[in-house]
Amino acid sequence: MAAMDSRRRMVETTARLLWSQGLRATGMSQIVEESKAPRGSIYFHFPEGKEQLAAEALRAAGAVMTANIREALALRDAGAAIRRFVAVYAREMRDSDFHHGCPIATVALEAATTSAPIRAVCAEVFAGWEALLAERLRRDGRRRAEARRLAVVILSLLEGAMILCRARQSTAPLRDVAAHLAETLRRPIRTRPHRAAPPVPG
Amino acid sequence: MAAMDSRRRMVETTARLLWSQGLRATGMSQIVEESKAPRGSIYFHFPEGKEQLAAEALRAAGAVMTANIREALALRDAGAAIRRFVAVYAREMRDSDFHHGCPIATVALEAATTSAPIRAVCAEVFAGWEALLAERLRRDGRRRAEARRLAVVILSLLEGAMILCRARQSTAPLRDVAAHLAETLRRPIRTRPHRAAPPVPG
Repeated sequence: MAAMDSRRRMVETTARLLWSQGLRATGMSQIVEESKAPRGSIYFHFPEGKEQLAAEALRAAGAVMTANIREALALRDAGAAIRRFVAVYAREMRDSDFHHGCPIATVALEAATTSAPIRAVCAEVFAGWEALLAERLRRDGRRRAEARRLAVVILSLLEGAMILCRARQSTAPLRDVAAHLAETLRRPIRTRPHRAAPPVPG
Repeated sequence: MAAMDSRRRMVETTARLLWSQGLRATGMSQIVEESKAPRGSIYFHFPEGKEQLAAEALRAAGAVMTANIREALALRDAGAAIRRFVAVYAREMRDSDFHHGCPIATVALEAATTSAPIRAVCAEVFAGWEALLAERLRRDGRRRAEARRLAVVILSLLEGAMILCRARQSTAPLRDVAAHLAETLRRPIRTRPHRAAPPVPG
């Protein structure tokens, strides 16, 4: 029990540190100290060291965001879902004095040149969010290719706006992109093209 | 002359290192080594140390990007300008094995919690790019508020897509957002609202 608690605390502490300060600035000794885990137990739980711990922390942070996206997307109107999501993250950024943005982005950029395994975990988390968005857009009647592309557009807009927000210390860029998205999503949906006959298999 | 050369080399080397590996991973000793500058001269040229050097390097990298944006925006069609710009940066990313994305983004995210002066320089560079984009959209006949908002949308999309590209090691996200932008920019422009009569001066 106690061992599981300290393991969980290490993962949570790592996720929090990666969120605010990124991969490079987060050292094992800070994780041990801030998680109040017994020194020495970190390599017992994570024999592969920082990369293993960071990968698990990123997946955990990704799962929290996935739950938030899922909750927002349960709303009837996709534009309203985006606005709800943006309102939550704008508040998070303000409340954290712009220390918190996307929990994955900083690490994804740092890892692009320094750690293939961590980069791959970030790609996997982003792909999960994209799939959620695309699935919702499909349910709204969009064609597969359009839904996939629009999911990339939504994710890119939010990720990019969060960079600008943190640099500017203002949530205005998030509000700007939310307005653009609401407008884009309001536009009539081009439904799937009708075919004269279904393609013959074989 | 030699002193100016070594100063310039330090700034260029720093810009290159920040571009590929970010602020935290870039140390003064690596800058000295890779710029082949005389050891000791770095604090002669940059008495305030790494923050001063990084600020100058970010402004230099920002200016290169500004020139690229300006060149692309000289094209007649705004959608074609975006596609030209995206093609250049997609090639840059591929050629650098996805070590290069936006020369500012990684540092902006790292600095958000660690360095107010560096964060402010990043904000200033982003604001310059936004102003260039907004100016072009105004010339195309868009209203001031719409041009400003659309500039934030374009920059956010490109910044966000570059994160996804680097994580996924693929330029597909950039192509997806370029297609969305070309479509958005093709849409009829809502010109300034007509007034019944011009306002009477005085």
